[in-house]
Amino acid sequence: MATTTAQTTAHLVTPTGGPRRLRPHPDRLLPADPATRAVARELYDGIRDLPIVSPHGHVPAAWLAEDAAFRDPTSLLVTPDHYVTRLMHAQGVPLDRLGVGRGPLSEAESREAFRLLCAGWRTYRGTAVRHWLEHTLAHVLDVDVEPSAATADAVYDQVADRIAAPDLRPRALYDRFGLSVLATTDDPTDDLRHHRALAADPSWRGRVVPTFRPDAYVEVRRSDWPDAVTRLGAVADVDTATYAGWIAAMEARRSYFQEHGATSTDHSHRDARAEPLERSVAERLYARAVAGAVTPDEADALRRDLLFQMARMASEDGLVMTLHPAVARDHHPGTRDRYGADVGADIPVGVEFTDALRPVLGAFGTNPRFQLVVFTIDETVYSRELAPLAGFYPSLYVGAPWWFLDAPEAMTRFRSAVTETTGFTRTAGFVDDTRAFLSIPARHDTARRVDAAYLARLVAEHRLDLDEAHEVAHDLTVVNPREAFRL
Amino acid sequence: MATTTAQTTAHLVTPTGGPRRLRPHPDRLLPADPATRAVARELYDGIRDLPIVSPHGHVPAAWLAEDAAFRDPTSLLVTPDHYVTRLMHAQGVPLDRLGVGRGPLSEAESREAFRLLCAGWRTYRGTAVRHWLEHTLAHVLDVDVEPSAATADAVYDQVADRIAAPDLRPRALYDRFGLSVLATTDDPTDDLRHHRALAADPSWRGRVVPTFRPDAYVEVRRSDWPDAVTRLGAVADVDTATYAGWIAAMEARRSYFQEHGATSTDHSHRDARAEPLERSVAERLYARAVAGAVTPDEADALRRDLLFQMARMASEDGLVMTLHPAVARDHHPGTRDRYGADVGADIPVGVEFTDALRPVLGAFGTNPRFQLVVFTIDETVYSRELAPLAGFYPSLYVGAPWWFLDAPEAMTRFRSAVTETTGFTRTAGFVDDTRAFLSIPARHDTARRVDAAYLARLVAEHRLDLDEAHEVAHDLTVVNPREAFRL
Amino acid sequence: MATTTAQTTAHLVTPTGGPRRLRPHPDRLLPADPATRAVARELYDGIRDLPIVSPHGHVPAAWLAEDAAFRDPTSLLVTPDHYVTRLMHAQGVPLDRLGVGRGPLSEAESREAFRLLCAGWRTYRGTAVRHWLEHTLAHVLDVDVEPSAATADAVYDQVADRIAAPDLRPRALYDRFGLSVLATTDDPTDDLRHHRALAADPSWRGRVVPTFRPDAYVEVRRSDWPDAVTRLGAVADVDTATYAGWIAAMEARRSYFQEHGATSTDHSHRDARAEPLERSVAERLYARAVAGAVTPDEADALRRDLLFQMARMASEDGLVMTLHPAVARDHHPGTRDRYGADVGADIPVGVEFTDALRPVLGAFGTNPRFQLVVFTIDETVYSRELAPLAGFYPSLYVGAPWWFLDAPEAMTRFRSAVTETTGFTRTAGFVDDTRAFLSIPARHDTARRVDAAYLARLVAEHRLDLDEAHEVAHDLTVVNPREAFRL
Repeated sequence: MATTTAQTTAHLVTPTGGPRRLRPHPDRLLPADPATRAVARELYDGIRDLPIVSPHGHVPAAWLAEDAAFRDPTSLLVTPDHYVTRLMHAQGVPLDRLGVGRGPLSEAESREAFRLLCAGWRTYRGTAVRHWLEHTLAHVLDVDVEPSAATADAVYDQVADRIAAPDLRPRALYDRFGLSVLATTDDPTDDLRHHRALAADPSWRGRVVPTFRPDAYVEVRRSDWPDAVTRLGAVADVDTATYAGWIAAMEARRSYFQEHGATSTDHSHRDARAEPLERSVAERLYARAVAGAVTPDEADALRRDLLFQMARMASEDGLVMTLHPAVARDHHPGTRDRYGADVGADIPVGVEFTDALRPVLGAFGTNPRFQLVVFTIDETVYSRELAPLAGFYPSLYVGAPWWFLDAPEAMTRFRSAVTETTGFTRTAGFVDDTRAFLSIPARHDTARRVDAAYLARLVAEHRLDLDEAHEVAHDLTVVNPREAFRL
Repeated sequence: MATTTAQTTAHLVTPTGGPRRLRPHPDRLLPADPATRAVARELYDGIRDLPIVSPHGHVPAAWLAEDAAFRDPTSLLVTPDHYVTRLMHAQGVPLDRLGVGRGPLSEAESREAFRLLCAGWRTYRGTAVRHWLEHTLAHVLDVDVEPSAATADAVYDQVADRIAAPDLRPRALYDRFGLSVLATTDDPTDDLRHHRALAADPSWRGRVVPTFRPDAYVEVRRSDWPDAVTRLGAVADVDTATYAGWIAAMEARRSYFQEHGATSTDHSHRDARAEPLERSVAERLYARAVAGAVTPDEADALRRDLLFQMARMASEDGLVMTLHPAVARDHHPGTRDRYGADVGADIPVGVEFTDALRPVLGAFGTNPRFQLVVFTIDETVYSRELAPLAGFYPSLYVGAPWWFLDAPEAMTRFRSAVTETTGFTRTAGFVDDTRAFLSIPARHDTARRVDAAYLARLVAEHRLDLDEAHEVAHDLTVVNPREAFRL
Repeated sequence: MATTTAQTTAHLVTPTGGPRRLRPHPDRLLPADPATRAVARELYDGIRDLPIVSPHGHVPAAWLAEDAAFRDPTSLLVTPDHYVTRLMHAQGVPLDRLGVGRGPLSEAESREAFRLLCAGWRTYRGTAVRHWLEHTLAHVLDVDVEPSAATADAVYDQVADRIAAPDLRPRALYDRFGLSVLATTDDPTDDLRHHRALAADPSWRGRVVPTFRPDAYVEVRRSDWPDAVTRLGAVADVDTATYAGWIAAMEARRSYFQEHGATSTDHSHRDARAEPLERSVAERLYARAVAGAVTPDEADALRRDLLFQMARMASEDGLVMTLHPAVARDHHPGTRDRYGADVGADIPVGVEFTDALRPVLGAFGTNPRFQLVVFTIDETVYSRELAPLAGFYPSLYVGAPWWFLDAPEAMTRFRSAVTETTGFTRTAGFVDDTRAFLSIPARHDTARRVDAAYLARLVAEHRLDLDEAHEVAHDLTVVNPREAFRL
């Protein structure tokens, strides 16, 4: 009891002196008002056990193709999940102590990293990560004590023990989670061998589809762009030294992905603009880019043309186009230099859609073959731009709140800002967008609770009838995502 | 029961198998918490039957001057209401099937268009349009079954039957709705014959006032601008080939409108900027505009000067200036080309007021003759700009949430974001801004319920006393709009 | 009963005909739902009487050093508080009638100004100011009738009577308010004599610390900048005609402040950008600025370099850097010319942090010596930029909602937007930022109630356990601000 920390946390044990139990409450995230909660509980019960449709995420297909046991608790739950590591980093924990940017950890290092998470458990209070971790630990890994400095080793042992069991292998979890489809995110030059292996495996009854993510081939300013287009040309067997070659190669690879089950492409650039150039201008800029002589403004113009070409291809081949724009990647240079990309140092910036999407929507917005799902981390566009756009264009769906916004209150704000203008039918349903496979049920469960809570309020305020709310809850869970992503 | 749609909608019939009743709940939109609801109900009861002040909208004065029966359900409820048609369009229904851009529909076509609305009823779940349509159908047109594919013809017949009755003529509805004043929106060259006819009619006891809307004469870049200023000159009997002529003609027409009851002018441009040019510069740019030789930047500069001149005139003649800025009009070129303007393809863009209004407020902001009501579809400016501005400048009122934001939760967010900084006295009250005459009571009723609900929460949280809340509710309904619009 | 005002306010008296009582409800600002309120009340009870940590504000140190009685009710409660005067101004009351920009008022003038406040009491309904004034009047000044035209003189007398008593002197109030530390805001050239006097006074047991606010020396475009840097050089005994001199003088004055107890510096510019120039460029621009020959763009570049230098110094001397950016100062020129600065005519503008802070965070963001607290009046950056930044960088704290956002619902929106991404540990706690000394307990009490209400909802929704909520409430009140400001 000598330190401040001890004093402030001393009461956080059970009266009997044992560690606190980890027992996610059955009514968590449902509204406090008793009558509204009763409706929310009924609505949630109606969708809780529906299949999980996961149309966008970052789980490796290899996990399911190979179906190997997970290695250890830290490499499963901590190291690869930047939602988890970034908050530790904000508390002053260097990322390498959590295993980031390193090879496999020793048993001692893995334990130590896991202990940092457990000891810092209070950091996650009030966050979405806390819900996901609790749900994962309690419902997937059968942990029943709250993580803390004192329980860290016991929790580690419990997790290690569980993931050694056959029912914790990826395919068993796919079934247990009730996944009906899981989309991966893949490079256009990927040969999709793991997807092919799954397709060829008679013992596999699930569905894992690739997603075409060509950003590296569109960002002509990136230092690795020349190598990327060369690789693209090689894989597609087309000379990509010309604009026409780039177009042909992309069309070929889209076709390849589509043959292997892809239903969508994904695009993430600094802004959402996509505008065609005159063909001759595009060809000239492309040649300059290949020669390494493009200016920043020219690079932006060419990128926006290439993205427009992607929309044009989508209007022809029917792959759904999804946009995740406006993130400042690798905000901290020191972290990028030491740890690389995707380690939690990406920060959103403001975004604009009304003008940015005008050329694409002008060209393809009422084309029944074209479908566009737009995501944002900038909430200001919900009521101002996305709902009005989706409430007019039959091609445009509003994506679920994404990344920093895939949390209970943020999702509620999303529904509040979008529904009154555009209803429920124009929203794409929940997208987990995660590389943390074990957290998929937790994330979808959170979304289902939030939708149930929102709908319950509409019912309690006599804005929607209960039977209608049941139907909407069902559609948001399994119908809208299939429609929006053409699954 | 063979199709998915049938399966998901099959339970949406009453247990007896008949169609669902259309019965808007008396407590709709009031808070779920029982104690708060009781206060809200009391507050709502106190304002429910107050007269409707409608200081800004788009109902044609001819309807009241001529007092003819409405033609048919579709041309009354569907075709002209872009709130209704845009959501149908987003479901893939071409606008012409709803009557947009066509002459009068045949009986069969009208029925078919109405059937599309009824069959797509689920599209409107959770939207503001649903409230308005339900209220209109149930309380104005005595429809008691919910629209659906199955009930479409019966509902159509019921509506057709009702609008044939004398008590559904425009003047009878004006009385029945409890309208105390209705503002129209009019071109500066309009001779206001319908307003004059009403004024001259001894049997007419209502009040319909024109609003001066000079956008077409201010947007010097528009292709129809030369014709517009020529027409303006002809009507005002002034040579508008010069800047001085434009000013004189505008002053003359404002005066004409004021003589015919106008109390406000309305302005909607891409941004809210209004800044004076040197007189010689303005004259030179105007001459270039007349010659068709103005650059885009010059056109913007001239537009902002002309808008500033409007503010200057307002500070002299006392017409209230209202701004509805920052909408990308006719976002979809194909729709504009085929159907024209105002068919639901306008999309908001971000707006800025702090800098944009600085010249006008610097010049006239504390001038007691000057009054400005500012509207927005960009919620970000509520707490950041509009509430701080209205909490300092005695000339500036914050307009009600407009267009896409005139919905229950959006209006609640408006009150939440504005009230704590600037209180209630600086808000202009509800503006229906509609061309759907029959929806006026529904829209004002929604606003009254929302204000009652918001005030009830303040009372329940002991932030306001009940008697104060009654007074505020009363003022927001009938006092604030009269003050803000000088009615 | 002859006038409208009389009619609408006539019922706002008690049934017995006496004036309305002023009795702030014990449960004010707590949620209406009974179960949630019970939790909120318990949480609030746990923090209500904790010491007040006031790490940023504008109370003059002289008040505590000299400990003189307050002069009169108006100069204490009305004239210096722009929160109060700006809403009166918006009602058409000229600021000079409230004492702004004038010397001491006569007794009659002071009474008259106070009467304007009381007569306009309804203006404050729903605002944060109303809470603060009620709390101050009732709990600090023992006023028990509601201010109104009828009670103005009685309230004035009561206040005048109370402030004449010894227990209403500044030092007695410091104790009574439970202040544990109070930060002032000071010019870098200030000799801090009042802080020194307090330090040297054995009868003074409180803690008043200065804050280093160098804006006037950084805004090289301001007309008073040449005089300012000359003064700075004189006080620091350094030649500030060169860039090197400016740097040396600033370092010297920061050191002086630190020796006198300062733990932070404060910075408020039009934007939040801070970026280093090449040393030779900075020196050249500085020389041009001294010569009065700097262009606006150069002045911006130099300002951003000087602010970056401040961050660099902070990373070395450990003074916490705080930013309060993006306000259009003196929005109304006529008011500035007549009344000067800080009279309520400052209006927020949009702000951007992700790009603006990149150079500073790239250089010092993971430096344990560097600490940055970022404030905003633009709510759009909460979830989009500030929470993501604070959830990664260990140096960055999100400041409490500031200025127009330090109100109950705005603070709730702040918690809702920030917590899910970054938890509670990265928020800086409440900052009153006030020059109204008597309102300090009211403002902190409001923040405590709002935090209790927010946490209670998390508990009621089973998102946080009650014991955790107690701990978080305690930390937000007294731990986080001490950590964030290194107090």
